[in-house]
Amino acid sequence: SVSPGMLPLCRRLMVWSTAPRQSPGLPLAPCRAFSNNKIMVELDESSGVATMKFKSPPVNSLSLDFLTEFCISLEKLENNWACRGVIITSAIPKIFSSGLDITEMCGKSTEHYAEFWRAVQEMWLRLYGSNMVTVAAVNGSSPAGGCLIALSCDYRIMVENPKFSIGLNEAQLGIVAPFWFKDTFVNVVGHRVAESSLQLGSLHPAPKAHRFGLVDELVPEEKLQEKTGAVMAQWLALPDHARQLTKSMMRKAVLDRLVAHREEDIQNFISFISKESIQKSLRMYMEMLKKKKG
Amino acid sequence: SVSPGMLPLCRRLMVWSTAPRQSPGLPLAPCRAFSNNKIMVELDESSGVATMKFKSPPVNSLSLDFLTEFCISLEKLENNWACRGVIITSAIPKIFSSGLDITEMCGKSTEHYAEFWRAVQEMWLRLYGSNMVTVAAVNGSSPAGGCLIALSCDYRIMVENPKFSIGLNEAQLGIVAPFWFKDTFVNVVGHRVAESSLQLGSLHPAPKAHRFGLVDELVPEEKLQEKTGAVMAQWLALPDHARQLTKSMMRKAVLDRLVAHREEDIQNFISFISKESIQKSLRMYMEMLKKKKG
Amino acid sequence: SVSPGMLPLCRRLMVWSTAPRQSPGLPLAPCRAFSNNKIMVELDESSGVATMKFKSPPVNSLSLDFLTEFCISLEKLENNWACRGVIITSAIPKIFSSGLDITEMCGKSTEHYAEFWRAVQEMWLRLYGSNMVTVAAVNGSSPAGGCLIALSCDYRIMVENPKFSIGLNEAQLGIVAPFWFKDTFVNVVGHRVAESSLQLGSLHPAPKAHRFGLVDELVPEEKLQEKTGAVMAQWLALPDHARQLTKSMMRKAVLDRLVAHREEDIQNFISFISKESIQKSLRMYMEMLKKKKG
Repeated sequence: SVSPGMLPLCRRLMVWSTAPRQSPGLPLAPCRAFSNNKIMVELDESSGVATMKFKSPPVNSLSLDFLTEFCISLEKLENNWACRGVIITSAIPKIFSSGLDITEMCGKSTEHYAEFWRAVQEMWLRLYGSNMVTVAAVNGSSPAGGCLIALSCDYRIMVENPKFSIGLNEAQLGIVAPFWFKDTFVNVVGHRVAESSLQLGSLHPAPKAHRFGLVDELVPEEKLQEKTGAVMAQWLALPDHARQLTKSMMRKAVLDRLVAHREEDIQNFISFISKESIQKSLRMYMEMLKKKKG
Repeated sequence: SVSPGMLPLCRRLMVWSTAPRQSPGLPLAPCRAFSNNKIMVELDESSGVATMKFKSPPVNSLSLDFLTEFCISLEKLENNWACRGVIITSAIPKIFSSGLDITEMCGKSTEHYAEFWRAVQEMWLRLYGSNMVTVAAVNGSSPAGGCLIALSCDYRIMVENPKFSIGLNEAQLGIVAPFWFKDTFVNVVGHRVAESSLQLGSLHPAPKAHRFGLVDELVPEEKLQEKTGAVMAQWLALPDHARQLTKSMMRKAVLDRLVAHREEDIQNFISFISKESIQKSLRMYMEMLKKKKG
Repeated sequence: SVSPGMLPLCRRLMVWSTAPRQSPGLPLAPCRAFSNNKIMVELDESSGVATMKFKSPPVNSLSLDFLTEFCISLEKLENNWACRGVIITSAIPKIFSSGLDITEMCGKSTEHYAEFWRAVQEMWLRLYGSNMVTVAAVNGSSPAGGCLIALSCDYRIMVENPKFSIGLNEAQLGIVAPFWFKDTFVNVVGHRVAESSLQLGSLHPAPKAHRFGLVDELVPEEKLQEKTGAVMAQWLALPDHARQLTKSMMRKAVLDRLVAHREEDIQNFISFISKESIQKSLRMYMEMLKKKKG
């Protein structure tokens, strides 16, 4: 059963550390590949590993529809006890995800901004707080929100192509990454690298990102699938219960901080994004993108 | 004078940052080597350096008796103003310490679990909060609680043998390192390495442990004593008072957190360890260890 | 208009994150080089970059006069909307700054200690919390308070001469770096390196300092100016507003902590520095310095 809206999803997540997910006494639930518009999901029940492939051309941007589908897919897997791990990757060549869809933040109503931002929060709460093992197979560039998705996984493997870059480059667009993007980033790369990278809006080529730990491993593109599978198998060799409690212990402080300031964070986003100067700078950025394509 | 129980030890520790330890006006207290059952202690009064050698065969596991003796030995040294630094090492080949003694956590009473866990806490509070310079000379493998002892020292030197490994591998046994193990670990290796190592229960070979800072230095086995002495001399060249206040400033937040949640942490341990599923997994682990030996 | 005392400066700083600094609608304020006794300041209005050169022989020590002039210069630049970035460097060969002036801490009145310490705090609050891009061009040794100035900038470039060293070496003088020196240090190099470096009072030669991130980049002395200019240009390519909000998000927790404990921190300093044992050790240190020179 899939929750249609965001609120029920959210409520379920908040109790994730106490509610047991696995019910090994029940018979295997039938579970096949399911695909909506924007994300392809396949679950291999023998290994317990699902693969989520972003396929929302041209650049897997995180629109409200995409985020909603992402959350629903994650919830389905989280509630399916046959699934213990998720690999997140892209079906679009050269791009993992381009991040938040700027059209959702431009010229829309306050209500729309609120709904959109709540969906962004929801996606992060669900992914960063997932009980499953999450591995990002970053097979293309991954700016801003795309980078956040990778940062929220347990492990990041990236194709070693130096043309692929990754980073939280919000500052380059004149906008500011919210505090929970920052907290997630600091947990991965430490304070110093996060501080300069966020201020400069740096997009780091894969080799450099690997040097300071933003990605854990680099592989040639043709080895990505094999390597990702091997890493996932290594993580799944551990007993779920101890691993999940450990993950919760590591991430709880940062998750709780957003949960405690969620409405305030939405209001901040709305008042920031509604400013005429910000709207103007986003419109200019979109114009530039269009010209690039044309 | 040696305190027989744990509570007086604990009370003394909590005032360590205000009570001056040194009384240079008093005559030299007589102090020779003392040895109980499980730990050999030698104090060189000319240098002010004590050496504690774990000698509890077969693997220096941290039983209640071992922990009690460890705490008493530390307290004796802490209160002896002729002692300014402690080197912690093993008298058993190939093993530094195998960590908490599993037999203390299996099939025992609630009261026993409480007493045992309080002793583990006491050991850490005393070692991590010690006013003395503490150097771990890790001359063998050092899993779980053994790793915690090394992490709690000021500096870690390990024999460069890649067969010796170190790490908090609790997750591999289906149990969870408590938050203060985690805090100590994060302070040494940072959030990212701690997160994946704790979830995977990783035991890192010495060279890898050195690469990400879990140990500060690697040396050939035959150079360990010389190197440890040189490092200790370097630390003792600093005035005690400034060094102690600095150490307290760095570690106080993490120490205070356990002191504030000590009873809660004991109750958590008891309710976790009393679960039949955990008991079963610990029994299986002990069976496996017995078969390995046999 | 320059505030004569410290309190008005301080009040202004506390609202820095809400009060907009730039008023692009106003005509360009006339701004040329200004120089007081101890610091030379030049503003290039075409690039928006000011250069502050310490020129207080023999070693740019941070006396009360120096700190006051430093704060006033920073405030002038901060309030001049034609200035967007500041390069901090030394006009004295081989030394960036020797840190706090020990004569200000020796044999003076309680009132003097309070005034001096308030000025040290003020300098850090102003520099670490600056809205401008701040780059340290470290062209000489930089112990203690000199290191703090470098740590408080956004980016540190150091001359690659291994004879130049940098670090918070307070412990070597028998004194203790205050918590906000420590917080700033941990934000740059992480907890482990900060803990051992602070306890040992380590002064790291430039190459080693670079290895663990205490400085971001090393260059030959003759390339320092060119490189510093290039880095500054890279930072100024970002829109000010987003960069400033990001910087504030990264540094606010640590800044707020001193603001909240400022008077307490002054009292701590006074009672520590007034101890006869500390006074004696500072007098001995000054004697040693005099003999070295003589």
